[in-house]
Amino acid sequence: MTHSSSDLQGSAAGQPLLDTVAIVGVGLIGGSFAAALRRRGLAKRIVGAGRSRATLMQAKQLGLIDEIVSLPEAAQQADLILLAAPVGAMINLFEQLLPTLRADTLITDAGSTKEDVVAAARQALGDRVGQFVPGHPIAGAEASGPQAAQADLYEGRVVVLTPLPENSPPQRERLENVWRAVGARVVLMSAQAHDRALASVSHVPHFLSSVYMHQVLASEDADSRLSLAGTGFRDFTRIAAGSAEMWRDIFLANRDAVLAELALVRANLEQAESALREQDGQSLLQFLERAAVARRLWGGRSQS
Amino acid sequence: MTHSSSDLQGSAAGQPLLDTVAIVGVGLIGGSFAAALRRRGLAKRIVGAGRSRATLMQAKQLGLIDEIVSLPEAAQQADLILLAAPVGAMINLFEQLLPTLRADTLITDAGSTKEDVVAAARQALGDRVGQFVPGHPIAGAEASGPQAAQADLYEGRVVVLTPLPENSPPQRERLENVWRAVGARVVLMSAQAHDRALASVSHVPHFLSSVYMHQVLASEDADSRLSLAGTGFRDFTRIAAGSAEMWRDIFLANRDAVLAELALVRANLEQAESALREQDGQSLLQFLERAAVARRLWGGRSQS
Repeated sequence: MTHSSSDLQGSAAGQPLLDTVAIVGVGLIGGSFAAALRRRGLAKRIVGAGRSRATLMQAKQLGLIDEIVSLPEAAQQADLILLAAPVGAMINLFEQLLPTLRADTLITDAGSTKEDVVAAARQALGDRVGQFVPGHPIAGAEASGPQAAQADLYEGRVVVLTPLPENSPPQRERLENVWRAVGARVVLMSAQAHDRALASVSHVPHFLSSVYMHQVLASEDADSRLSLAGTGFRDFTRIAAGSAEMWRDIFLANRDAVLAELALVRANLEQAESALREQDGQSLLQFLERAAVARRLWGGRSQS
Repeated sequence: MTHSSSDLQGSAAGQPLLDTVAIVGVGLIGGSFAAALRRRGLAKRIVGAGRSRATLMQAKQLGLIDEIVSLPEAAQQADLILLAAPVGAMINLFEQLLPTLRADTLITDAGSTKEDVVAAARQALGDRVGQFVPGHPIAGAEASGPQAAQADLYEGRVVVLTPLPENSPPQRERLENVWRAVGARVVLMSAQAHDRALASVSHVPHFLSSVYMHQVLASEDADSRLSLAGTGFRDFTRIAAGSAEMWRDIFLANRDAVLAELALVRANLEQAESALREQDGQSLLQFLERAAVARRLWGGRSQS
């Protein structure tokens, strides 16, 4: 997928919302944001920064970004900066942006956890923290890297923003408008509520899926077992294939909420196990039925 | 999808392998077997039996079966009988088939567990148990019922047979040939090995997925959490939407192997949790990396 520079003048959304957008980390998430802005003509110019030169070169070749810049240059040039980097790297990025950061520049991020990123922003940006509006676009895919970028990745997807008391309403609204313009549904909540909810519907499922994949792998007859695995196992373990580095960072960053949810898993598992041990078919049926009905209802509502 | 009776004369595989095939339970699994036999012209006549009259009528309308019969009639008429019913119902089916069972009729099943079905067959069929060759086609889909039947459901899929010492080699080979003729890969193993492997790659993943779906549902802010759930959660919990009744039966039928695997889950979960609690990033990374690599390798090999 390439994007010619004429895409810049796209008329779907009328006037560009932004002059220069800087994307730090032009992988799937950052690259798709760039592609979406391009397709809708929302930015006059998109620049890319990041630690991997190869990724940036590729993003430029794909037409996702116009230019490769340093972090100080990004801070100087951009109206909007999207940090699409691992959460563990955020504090360093804020530190590098601060010295040249324009007073009217808005920074946001795409990190999977919010309390720790907010803490990093407060620490690194100090009294400029009002320029940072924390965000989390809930979109992912098995693929990664700029070549996996999709201009429609955010269409119909939820983007959570967890604004700070220091954010000015116009700044926050500007960011809401950008995400809405690329098709996302914006949801506002506190960083703490976000982190708890994500522990529940993203981080702990990943933890369980990985622990379980590891368990099957460690069995003596792993190959034989895996040769009998079907579509259920395939789906249950799909997330375990994700980047180990990224997920380690997420687990460490959201440790308290993940541990709290895991404690509940242990309690619930024990209860279900004891029903099975006692051959209590009625209790088993009840919890299976509730789970099945809930899953079917949710599956019906969800777009993703 | 309808199947005209002219499909009976399909020439893809040359001569029909079988005169009359009886399918007990013409849902997704039984119906797809019928459709596959039809498409390849492997049976001259296919009859259906089962407890739900509505399902059988529908299967007949769809052209999956030629006629609806009783279990004694099926036993009298069929060369091959496939029991595609919940494992808890098997003993009753064997009992109803026995009085009129022809000496040359081969019975097989599609049950998800094998030790309990073998025990039921021994108990009900007595010294005729040699006519039963236990089987388990590892194929499934979210959909169920005869309208979900697919003639290609078994193509490239594994069918496990767990033959009994009492089975004659020609009987067993006849069944192998039928499954191969509809595109399946036949794997032979003991009933015990099958049940352990399936506990590992099918039953326990379902158990965990259901327990977890139930947990999210039981949280105070379940709706808000679910509104943030993405594709990872969707895949991880997909299997939890399955039939509660069928899965209760599977868990009870394979209780020992499921409990043994669940005990391992608890031990492994504790270990991973303690790495997280102690912020041991190195251990976390190691187990996540092993799981991710294994899952990617397996994903590459698997067809399903």
